[in-house]
Amino acid sequence: MTSYDIAVIGGTGPQGRGLAYRWARHGHRVVLGSRSAERAAEAAAEIAARVPDGSVSGLGNADAAAGADVVVLAVPYDGHDDLVASLAGQLAGKTVISCVNPLGFDKQGPYGLDVPGGSAAETAAALVPSARVVGAFHHVSAPSLWSDAEYLDHEDVLVCGDDAEAKAVAVELARAVTSRDGVDAGRLRIARQLEPWTAVLISINKRYKIRSGTRISGL
Amino acid sequence: MTSYDIAVIGGTGPQGRGLAYRWARHGHRVVLGSRSAERAAEAAAEIAARVPDGSVSGLGNADAAAGADVVVLAVPYDGHDDLVASLAGQLAGKTVISCVNPLGFDKQGPYGLDVPGGSAAETAAALVPSARVVGAFHHVSAPSLWSDAEYLDHEDVLVCGDDAEAKAVAVELARAVTSRDGVDAGRLRIARQLEPWTAVLISINKRYKIRSGTRISGL
Repeated sequence: MTSYDIAVIGGTGPQGRGLAYRWARHGHRVVLGSRSAERAAEAAAEIAARVPDGSVSGLGNADAAAGADVVVLAVPYDGHDDLVASLAGQLAGKTVISCVNPLGFDKQGPYGLDVPGGSAAETAAALVPSARVVGAFHHVSAPSLWSDAEYLDHEDVLVCGDDAEAKAVAVELARAVTSRDGVDAGRLRIARQLEPWTAVLISINKRYKIRSGTRISGL
Repeated sequence: MTSYDIAVIGGTGPQGRGLAYRWARHGHRVVLGSRSAERAAEAAAEIAARVPDGSVSGLGNADAAAGADVVVLAVPYDGHDDLVASLAGQLAGKTVISCVNPLGFDKQGPYGLDVPGGSAAETAAALVPSARVVGAFHHVSAPSLWSDAEYLDHEDVLVCGDDAEAKAVAVELARAVTSRDGVDAGRLRIARQLEPWTAVLISINKRYKIRSGTRISGL
């Protein structure tokens, strides 16, 4: 298995921190990015305490992205476009994995937001045309990622993208989460379905008091 | 288990015929509806040949809907709104289950169509305000439904709706398909996610040469 240099932008949030923990635990070198390098370093120290032989550190977002082969966008949708635009230089030419879920919440529960560019992943691709953007890792719950479980093997990571090599990276990085390759779900525009699917899972979680996940049957 | 009188509008299509077969096989009384009563009767005879002790017949759409407690909309999205409007009298006050998938296809594969009312299910609810509309049964593949398998127990049926009683009917009717209750996925607007999710499954089917399905883990 290839070992990657991964920057997790938004690495102090629950989703980013959880993914970073999984990747550090399974032999990848991870740098957490945050607006605050200090907060990034604190979150990295939390992970390092759980993965003593792992390689994990924290930096400001731009510095984190600059040194990585693979940049993971694990940021809230609110502010996403400005952040991606501000990192265009660091993202250029790289494999960029968007886990962004553009969701709203009201008294009826979670719902998918209308995204002018179709999806957060497509928006990132439009903002940084040379980046090789894929969408993946939208659905695994943050507490499950942060748990002690060796693998979250009851779930699948769905991957979409228009660049076959970048997609293959995300497919491989899924192994650290689920123990299996990610599932190639198609072209980048499929992110329009993958991103708001998280609203379905949160809605189920609320009704059944569980942490639901998605498994693709028939594979 | 309650035994229902179910009309399957679009019952000569692969999805409708497959669902009708499952329900007939598990003790419900099913009437297939079609624009052509003759074609409906032919499809009903096909099912009856496979379920000799089942109750299954075929009628024109309006007659089928008029006699049922539960009306299942298993029609193509193209023409959906006009058809639902034409059946408003027969659907009024009833439990209406929409399995409609508003999908387009181009050289990149399947994609979710922009639906002015948000989703086909919400559109049906707007067209017939007294109908108790739920969305369900979008994802199970037609060949799997029509197969000999006793149950498709590797998949889940996701159900959404704003009327608790109608939703409970769809949850119960899922048992004939998966052997388990359907999963309550939330309010009717969640159909905006459930309907185009079928594009993800078709996209996976094309890549892996399988019949994929969706299973919710953690339940």
